[in-house]
Amino acid sequence: MHTTILKGNLIHTPTPDHFVCIEQGYLVAEGNKICGIYRELPQKYHSCPVMDYGDALIIPGLCDMHVHAPQFVYRGLGLDLQLMDWLDRYAFPTEARFADPEYARIYYEAFADAMAKNGTTRAVIFGTLHVPATELLMEILEKKKICAYAGKINMDTLSPDFLCETPQQSLADTERWILDTKDRFRYVHPAITPRFIPTCSSEVLEGLGELAEKYHLPIHSHISEDLGEMEVVRGRYPEYDNDGDVYDSFHLLTGQTVMAHFIYPTDHELQLIRERGVTIAHCPQSNGNVAAGIPPIRRMLDLGIKVGLGSDIAGGFSLCIFRAMAEAVYLSKLNWLQSGKKEAFLTVPEAFYLGTMGGGQFFGKVGCFEPGYELDALVIDDRSLGTPADRLTLEERIERVIHLADDRNIIGRFVCGEKA
Amino acid sequence: MHTTILKGNLIHTPTPDHFVCIEQGYLVAEGNKICGIYRELPQKYHSCPVMDYGDALIIPGLCDMHVHAPQFVYRGLGLDLQLMDWLDRYAFPTEARFADPEYARIYYEAFADAMAKNGTTRAVIFGTLHVPATELLMEILEKKKICAYAGKINMDTLSPDFLCETPQQSLADTERWILDTKDRFRYVHPAITPRFIPTCSSEVLEGLGELAEKYHLPIHSHISEDLGEMEVVRGRYPEYDNDGDVYDSFHLLTGQTVMAHFIYPTDHELQLIRERGVTIAHCPQSNGNVAAGIPPIRRMLDLGIKVGLGSDIAGGFSLCIFRAMAEAVYLSKLNWLQSGKKEAFLTVPEAFYLGTMGGGQFFGKVGCFEPGYELDALVIDDRSLGTPADRLTLEERIERVIHLADDRNIIGRFVCGEKA
Repeated sequence: MHTTILKGNLIHTPTPDHFVCIEQGYLVAEGNKICGIYRELPQKYHSCPVMDYGDALIIPGLCDMHVHAPQFVYRGLGLDLQLMDWLDRYAFPTEARFADPEYARIYYEAFADAMAKNGTTRAVIFGTLHVPATELLMEILEKKKICAYAGKINMDTLSPDFLCETPQQSLADTERWILDTKDRFRYVHPAITPRFIPTCSSEVLEGLGELAEKYHLPIHSHISEDLGEMEVVRGRYPEYDNDGDVYDSFHLLTGQTVMAHFIYPTDHELQLIRERGVTIAHCPQSNGNVAAGIPPIRRMLDLGIKVGLGSDIAGGFSLCIFRAMAEAVYLSKLNWLQSGKKEAFLTVPEAFYLGTMGGGQFFGKVGCFEPGYELDALVIDDRSLGTPADRLTLEERIERVIHLADDRNIIGRFVCGEKA
Repeated sequence: MHTTILKGNLIHTPTPDHFVCIEQGYLVAEGNKICGIYRELPQKYHSCPVMDYGDALIIPGLCDMHVHAPQFVYRGLGLDLQLMDWLDRYAFPTEARFADPEYARIYYEAFADAMAKNGTTRAVIFGTLHVPATELLMEILEKKKICAYAGKINMDTLSPDFLCETPQQSLADTERWILDTKDRFRYVHPAITPRFIPTCSSEVLEGLGELAEKYHLPIHSHISEDLGEMEVVRGRYPEYDNDGDVYDSFHLLTGQTVMAHFIYPTDHELQLIRERGVTIAHCPQSNGNVAAGIPPIRRMLDLGIKVGLGSDIAGGFSLCIFRAMAEAVYLSKLNWLQSGKKEAFLTVPEAFYLGTMGGGQFFGKVGCFEPGYELDALVIDDRSLGTPADRLTLEERIERVIHLADDRNIIGRFVCGEKA
């Protein structure tokens, strides 16, 4: 078995309450599994080569728990439109173009390159409703070594004519695509991906719940994202007063479900999400851009709900999960103020935890450097962020990285035990 | 007189309601003044050299209307502390170190380099209370061609022992520094800079009002920044119910005053600020980081109050005014939602206007490419932000720049008519 040894300043968050920092430590993995982190290299590894990154920081890979790959085309555009205008002007016409695999190839290549460059090693990704483009997306992610659950999406109602399926076609295409891709890749796997409740008929939601169970697949969608969306769902399912119960009635809330946003949960819905073991993808940049609101992340964490971070391209414009960490703290401070200083804001280690462990647990033992975890790591050269006169602790250095680093600072990337 | 001709895609906002875009246009200046922008180069300039920037964008320089130069030392740190803890742990001890000019030189050089690299051509800057360090800051800004009003700050009460003046010393040092620097530089001038009301005695505020009048100087401080700050001011000046009246009673509100934040203005205070012609520096990144709140920028604009943008380093962590534009839109969307969708959010051209013209007017005719304005310009190569397959309008390209560009995209910089 291949042994990997990285030397540098190791920083991770096995728990959210503080950073664990080892100055000039050794991170040792055998195959894709971490054996441990050491202040002195154990005797038995003395004959193995060491990749010495000097004074650089070594941290777990970043996890993007909610991102729309086709919307990478128009990221950073239309950000002063209202949500429905923005969907009509950008989202729907652009997604329709992914019927053309050549168009899809150009943008999915650019998307995957940008994701890798920004240090994302794991992601849960929306495609479009098109099977060929979604399979192409999966091939490209595999080639670039980004571990991902990717989804052909489903939309058979309340959708524009040029981007709409019949229920039968939607479910048949989905099953065909599952069979095509479920055992085809090492890094990439299919996820059941209803766009959201408004664009899926009950027939499709029911069929997707059955497919998820039949093939043991993860599930990815949006929940309680926006007051307008919730009103549509209340109108269609008057027997429920929240999105969670609707999804649950179709068996779509499981320990392998990730749901984005959850901005206006009811108390009952919070309990339901916790009991089902669902992971919430918090996308702070998008929450403001689409004027959806501020989700009660502190309450979710206090209840023991699993939470990760998402870029939500193109509701968010940046693929950088460091930026999502900074914005999670920022938004939680506004929430703290608005709660009469009752709901404590997120700390920096908590935000880092959300962007590494919080998302990583969705992929198994991923997101920190404890023994038994998979080796996903980034090497960060932070010299450009300060001056040689700085005297900073490792905690301060990683906080500055979170707020100020960009892709230039990421000088090494390991995914599933391999240099990528 | 020296003629400068730039060719490229010209984008500016003489008014906040829309971008004016000229594809492949010519921007012509004589000396430091713009003569005009043209689709075809007028005959009389045919013998002049043209700097042809191809498909790049050419936009006005960015204006940072509120930034603490010494706090550049610890930008991106302590962002999950509460305001008073953060001041005690970072701001005050760091500022005290600027008693040492060698320490000051290291960080002021780094600060000015970063500011130039990020495309800021005009700035209004807090120093520390130290005269030698503040003069050094001014020398460094001059050398790097950043047009700035910089201030030795005043603090003689409610300040830590190691960073506090007597009123007499504060005023005497200020006058000596004014005489030393007021005619010494081309690009840099002194501004009267009381830290804020809580740290200045009435004696100092009164003396500063007199100095501003005597030497016709601009004034720079904070107003209605935070509920805690406002409570201190109410306790000290029970005869007034707002910060504005206190400043006004000391003659510190003029057409050459810039005040940061203004988060909780009273109706009367809004009128006062408008009547006095004060410019408000909106610092959206800082507003959330220090959990101060969301200022009513839409109401200010509707009332005709002048508003620019500020990085507020280190309440903000990024010097990039593009980022302040994006965050101004973001924060205004949360405000729109919280106002019951009554206070319209900022549009992208409005945010661009705030970061160029809104701040620029404080420096005279600065901030757009209309004839008679000073030539401050940035050349932006945005190719890295998209793919060759993109078919974007110039309006879309500048919106993407605002959201996604960084210093790498700024490939040329002109300040006061000169290439910098």
